[in-house]
Amino acid sequence: MGLDERRLRVESQHFSIVYRPAILVGLMVGVLGTVVDVMAQALKDVQTPDTPLVLKAQGSFFVGGEKAEQTQGELGNLGPGGHIAVNQMYVRYMVPQGGDGNVPVVMVHGATLTGKSWETTPDGRMGWDEYFVRKGHPVYVPDQVGRGRSGFNQAVFNNVRAGSAPQANQPAWLRFSDEGVWPNFRFGLKPGAPYPDSQFPVTAVDELAKQGVPDVSFGGVPTPNPTLKAMSDLAGQLNGAILMGHSQSGSFPLEAALIDPAATRGLVLVEPGRCPAGYTTEQIAALAKVPILVVFGDHRDTPTGLPTLPSWQARFEACQALISRVTSAGGQAQMLNPPDRGIRGNSHMIMQDKNSLQIADLILQWIDESVSKRRAGSN
Amino acid sequence: MGLDERRLRVESQHFSIVYRPAILVGLMVGVLGTVVDVMAQALKDVQTPDTPLVLKAQGSFFVGGEKAEQTQGELGNLGPGGHIAVNQMYVRYMVPQGGDGNVPVVMVHGATLTGKSWETTPDGRMGWDEYFVRKGHPVYVPDQVGRGRSGFNQAVFNNVRAGSAPQANQPAWLRFSDEGVWPNFRFGLKPGAPYPDSQFPVTAVDELAKQGVPDVSFGGVPTPNPTLKAMSDLAGQLNGAILMGHSQSGSFPLEAALIDPAATRGLVLVEPGRCPAGYTTEQIAALAKVPILVVFGDHRDTPTGLPTLPSWQARFEACQALISRVTSAGGQAQMLNPPDRGIRGNSHMIMQDKNSLQIADLILQWIDESVSKRRAGSN
Repeated sequence: MGLDERRLRVESQHFSIVYRPAILVGLMVGVLGTVVDVMAQALKDVQTPDTPLVLKAQGSFFVGGEKAEQTQGELGNLGPGGHIAVNQMYVRYMVPQGGDGNVPVVMVHGATLTGKSWETTPDGRMGWDEYFVRKGHPVYVPDQVGRGRSGFNQAVFNNVRAGSAPQANQPAWLRFSDEGVWPNFRFGLKPGAPYPDSQFPVTAVDELAKQGVPDVSFGGVPTPNPTLKAMSDLAGQLNGAILMGHSQSGSFPLEAALIDPAATRGLVLVEPGRCPAGYTTEQIAALAKVPILVVFGDHRDTPTGLPTLPSWQARFEACQALISRVTSAGGQAQMLNPPDRGIRGNSHMIMQDKNSLQIADLILQWIDESVSKRRAGSN
Repeated sequence: MGLDERRLRVESQHFSIVYRPAILVGLMVGVLGTVVDVMAQALKDVQTPDTPLVLKAQGSFFVGGEKAEQTQGELGNLGPGGHIAVNQMYVRYMVPQGGDGNVPVVMVHGATLTGKSWETTPDGRMGWDEYFVRKGHPVYVPDQVGRGRSGFNQAVFNNVRAGSAPQANQPAWLRFSDEGVWPNFRFGLKPGAPYPDSQFPVTAVDELAKQGVPDVSFGGVPTPNPTLKAMSDLAGQLNGAILMGHSQSGSFPLEAALIDPAATRGLVLVEPGRCPAGYTTEQIAALAKVPILVVFGDHRDTPTGLPTLPSWQARFEACQALISRVTSAGGQAQMLNPPDRGIRGNSHMIMQDKNSLQIADLILQWIDESVSKRRAGSN
């Protein structure tokens, strides 16, 4: 086969089959649900920057973790019982050449997602992880405890399988359907009908769907969530860091800062699922010592389709209230609301939106003015 | 707090508490097993290379995947029922500046592990992912379908929880205990008693333990495992690649090559869990068109503690037999057996061993001689 012929054959694998829910293939009916259709492949869409990325260092490590003693059955019955590590947090990092004196940024993903959220976007553009590195910041991207490369504690599932624990002991695994994502992530009011000004790259929405993983955070990880302590510990080990959370982890930077306020240098809450109203005066005083930025997108009045949860506008207002409490206590907290600046159509997945680097630049500007210079002045 | 005082405080968090199984804390008894003790934190151990890493590109994408239609209950009961993506394969990649004409290497991890296997070693040294990039090769590191950032299909677990499916429908989650890993991964005959010449960094064995994630490969992913097709597709999309597997995925490169022999340019089987004896003459003829390297470590007669599985020496011999069949059919297959070269003490986790880069150099030499030059000659 000649090279041209071969290239042609490879190209022909790259066509994108549009999502057709009516076509049922039924590969796994019963055991694993009904599997339908084939989806696009994304390598061909991945873009390459014009200039190289020069890293002083990159790699991965874990924060936290404990030992659990489990039976052979709890371990799946292949090898002997004994001890395993649980509740550790996987972290991948990149340090730019010449940037190791700049403030590190820790980026934590939201529900049913992993650290992938911050990497290459669904339509193949540069993720915030690389962009912040190119802007000089060391970047640390964890997978929350219980998800992705951090794993989870499987013992109860094997016990239920063996009949040695009641099935109700087993926590639920959460995933969002495509149909639920469209309104809840505010791409549009209905699946397949984006807002005319939507910034989300909706032609690549099936690539976002592939980022979804089952989420056992609600009952399957210890309370408090070990991710909070791991984020605080990581900030301490970095000798100070900006903690960034998104959605379900949007309030995690606040909680991590309260564990060790001296370890954090700034908190960025991206589309947080909640801004707690119940902090004590002492907690607000602690938060007032750390610069805080809250970032929301547009179309916050979209009905989420999740009637048990507050609307995004209600969450926005709860964050406004928290900002008021912190600033009244002498703190430096502010809202980044793109529509106020004439930037319209941003979604819940703002780090993947078509104007994601424009939003990143606004956050980087805040870091420069509110964190880096503050640090320089305090030394 | 002054900088020196702060640094001291941070340093004091870095002490390593040795694993003490006798001390039970019992945080999660019943629901998630018995949790004991606190483990070392690894950031302080991570080493930084002397020279920067210059990348033309890095990022991540998915290969494969289908849509599954699931009920609200199967999705964990928060949002509406509908479609989700399943069986996609997450891939992280790094392309060296100036190296995009060199043959790419795809590195696939083994059982109860993720792509983390190939990244920073448990004791903080450079992983094979970065080393191969520094040697000029684009490197692609997937998480197998069903694990890590590739997710898994959670429907059956939620159905069992709700009582709408029998508990026996639920597949087992496999993890290896520390006690099982020591002999099975051939660090030594017993936990805590390494071979005097062991190449595994046993002082960091608890960091390897943190790499463990529950593995649902045996019953929880479709048959054939979608990772095989995804590996083949990825090789095709790359216009040819070397496929490398390890342990449970050690035979995956063979299987992926048989799906599309023209897409692969070389197969590297690192400590494969099996070398199939049942290939047909036609399959052997297909494999004879691709250069094959099998890599094993030392101490293969260590009793594995897994009586239902063959010994590592038996697996080595099965691979020798496969190599003989392929070479008899005119193929180019060979064994890299470090003890034959006077290199002793390598473990099952050879890519993390203290001499991991020495082993990598031998593989790179094979790539240069058997794949790159072959390619150059065939053009």
